[in-house]
Amino acid sequence: MSRMTTTPAPALDPRADIVDLTAAIVDIPSVSGDEQALADAVEQTLRTHAPHLTVIRDGDTVIARTELGRATRVVMAGHLDTVPVADNLPSSRRTRDGREELVGRGTCDMKGGVSIFLALAVETTDPDVDLTWIFYDHEEVAKADNSLTRIARTHPEHLQGDFAILGEPTSAGVEGGCKGTMKLEVTARGVASHSARDWVGDNAIHHLAPVLERLAAYEARRAVIDGLEYRECLNAVAITGGIAGNVIPDRAAITLNYRFAPDTSPDRAEAHVRELLKDCDVEIEVTDSAAGALPGLDTPPAREFLAALGDDVTVAAKQGWTDVSRFAELGTPAVNFGPGDPLLAHTDDEHVPLEDLRQALAALRRWLEPAGR
Amino acid sequence: MSRMTTTPAPALDPRADIVDLTAAIVDIPSVSGDEQALADAVEQTLRTHAPHLTVIRDGDTVIARTELGRATRVVMAGHLDTVPVADNLPSSRRTRDGREELVGRGTCDMKGGVSIFLALAVETTDPDVDLTWIFYDHEEVAKADNSLTRIARTHPEHLQGDFAILGEPTSAGVEGGCKGTMKLEVTARGVASHSARDWVGDNAIHHLAPVLERLAAYEARRAVIDGLEYRECLNAVAITGGIAGNVIPDRAAITLNYRFAPDTSPDRAEAHVRELLKDCDVEIEVTDSAAGALPGLDTPPAREFLAALGDDVTVAAKQGWTDVSRFAELGTPAVNFGPGDPLLAHTDDEHVPLEDLRQALAALRRWLEPAGR
Repeated sequence: MSRMTTTPAPALDPRADIVDLTAAIVDIPSVSGDEQALADAVEQTLRTHAPHLTVIRDGDTVIARTELGRATRVVMAGHLDTVPVADNLPSSRRTRDGREELVGRGTCDMKGGVSIFLALAVETTDPDVDLTWIFYDHEEVAKADNSLTRIARTHPEHLQGDFAILGEPTSAGVEGGCKGTMKLEVTARGVASHSARDWVGDNAIHHLAPVLERLAAYEARRAVIDGLEYRECLNAVAITGGIAGNVIPDRAAITLNYRFAPDTSPDRAEAHVRELLKDCDVEIEVTDSAAGALPGLDTPPAREFLAALGDDVTVAAKQGWTDVSRFAELGTPAVNFGPGDPLLAHTDDEHVPLEDLRQALAALRRWLEPAGR
Repeated sequence: MSRMTTTPAPALDPRADIVDLTAAIVDIPSVSGDEQALADAVEQTLRTHAPHLTVIRDGDTVIARTELGRATRVVMAGHLDTVPVADNLPSSRRTRDGREELVGRGTCDMKGGVSIFLALAVETTDPDVDLTWIFYDHEEVAKADNSLTRIARTHPEHLQGDFAILGEPTSAGVEGGCKGTMKLEVTARGVASHSARDWVGDNAIHHLAPVLERLAAYEARRAVIDGLEYRECLNAVAITGGIAGNVIPDRAAITLNYRFAPDTSPDRAEAHVRELLKDCDVEIEVTDSAAGALPGLDTPPAREFLAALGDDVTVAAKQGWTDVSRFAELGTPAVNFGPGDPLLAHTDDEHVPLEDLRQALAALRRWLEPAGR
C-alpha cells in the first residue's frame, strides 16, 4: 500500500556532472529506515541507463552486476542512508578559503561515493573484471539491522568477490582494512549509605579510581600492517554513578570502547583489557564487538587497483570500523576509497570538496577504463 | 475554597498511650506539600486541650508558646512532613527479634518525635522554663521551601530561645549540633573526537582520574567538640560523562558532597576541597552549602537538660545536617533528641521501636516535670 501511494522517485541523470549528480542524490533525504525513495531512484536509473547490468532489488538495497565471465570480480559498495538531518538539507554550494564545497547531510558520508559508483556503473560497460555494485540501506544503525547482515545470510553470493571497495569518505585516498571495535561495561559495586555516615557504606564511584588511572596512563599500540599504521585507542566513552545528592552510591560504571588493530582478534582484545584492569575491584563484561579487517594490499586485485590509481593517491590505514570487515569475514580483501573528509561525517557542517568528487571519479576511471583500451 | 471542602481533621487524643498517638499521627499522610490535614489536627488538638498555650497558625506550621515570664525559653521543634509514601501506610505493629515496632512512613522520621512533643505540650502546664513548641512543614524538601526559612524571615521572634531541641530520630539519645554540608560540581573539559581517532581529541573522563584517586585515598578528619566526635565525609555522590559510544567525550563531571565538622565554616570547607584537588585539571563550583551547628553542650540550658536526662541517655555528635543549624544561625544552641534509628529514615522499612517512644517521652518528662516538684 505505502509503496503505491509514494511519490515517484525523482529521475537521476547518471551522465550529468558529478557535482550535480551528487547534489541530486543528497537532496533525496534517506535517513536510516527511510531509504526507499533513494533506492527507487537508484534502481530506476540503473534499469533505464545500464542495460549491461543485471539489477536485483532486495528490500531497499539495489545490486547490479556485470556477468562478463571475467576471472576476477570486484565488489563496489556504498550505503544509501545517512544519520538524521540537522537542518542541513537541501544541499548548497559554497566557496571557503578558495575551495568549492557541496554542503549538507550525506555529502561526505557517503553520497559522494554513491554518486561516483552510480556514474561508473552506468558508463563502465566493458571492464577487465566483473563488477558488483551494491547500494545498500541501514548502515548508520545497529549491525543487526544493516542490510548487508541480511544479504550475507540470505544471498551470500551477492557479496562474493576477489576484492571489494567501499565508497566511505577517505578524502579520495585509499584507506586499507579497518580496526576492530569492542564495547565493555566496567562495573564497580559498593554499599549504599547516607553521605553523612560514609563509614557504614562503600563508595562505588571511588572504586573506579584505578580504572581511570590506567586509562589515563595507557599507551596505545601502533600496529604496522602492509605498511599501514593502525593506531589503537582505548577510552572511557561514558561514566555513570549516583543515586541522590545525600547517598553513597552502591554502583558505578564505565563504558569502554577499545579500537584494536586488525591483527588482533576480539578474544585477544578482551583479554588485553582484562589484563590491563587486573586487580581493579570491578566486573568487566563485553557488550559488543566486531573484528577489524586486514588491508590485504598484497593481493593481486588490490595491487592492480593501487597501480592504476598511481602514486598521487595516498594509501593509509582506515582507523574507524567500516563494512570492509564484513568482506574480510567472507575472505575478501577490501579497502575504503571515497570523496570527503571522514572527520566531517555526522557533523552538522558535513560537506565535500568538489575537487574530491572529481579526483575520486577520475582515479576510479583510470582503473576501470584504462586510456587507450 | 479547598480548605472549606477538605474533610475535617481527625481528632487526636494527646493523652492516649504514646504508641496509639504516634500511630494516629502517622496515619494522617503528610508528604511534603500536603501537610494541611495534619497541621489542622495538631492545631485543633492544642486549641482544645492546651488552654495554657498561645497557639499561632502560620501556613501549615503550628506554633504554641507558654508565656510564663521564665528567665529561659526552650524551643522544641518537629517537622510534620514526610518523604513520599512507599506503600507503607497505614501503620502497622509487629514484633521482630522480640522487639515491638511501629512500622510505616514517618514512624521514624519524625512523627514519633512529633507525638511526644504534642503530648508534652498538652501536659506541661507549669515548666521551669518557657517553652515554644513548633510543628512545621516542608522540611524534607529544598531549604528555600522549608517553613522555618519563611518564619525566620517574617517572624524571627517565634524561633528565638536560649536552647532548642529538635525531635529528629536519634534512637532516644542526645545528638548534639550537626555537621555542615556542601555540594560541589567538579568538571573536566576535553575535546570531542571519534573514538577510533582519539589522538585528535582529549578525553574529559580520563581527566577525572586524579580526582577519584584523591577521593579514594582521602582520610577524613575526625573533630572532637564538647566531647563529641564529628566524622567528616568527602564523597563523589554522582559522576557523569559521555556523548555516544563512538565519541571521545569533551565534558565529564563529578558531584561532590562534603560533610564537614561544625568548627569549619563553609568558606574553609570550600578552600579545603580546592586544596585537595589542586593541580587537577578541573573546574570546581560550589552549588549548595549549609553550615553545621556547634553542639553548645556547655551552655547552662543544655547542661540542665543533659543532667535531667541522666547518665542512661547517650550523648553523641549528630552526623547528618538537620535544622539545628538554623538555630545555631540564630545563636541558639540546639540538640537532636527523638525516637527511632536515623539510619531508617526514608527507607521503605521505616519503623520505630515502641520502647524508643516510651523512653524518649520518659526522658523529656524527667526534664520538664521533675519528680516531687
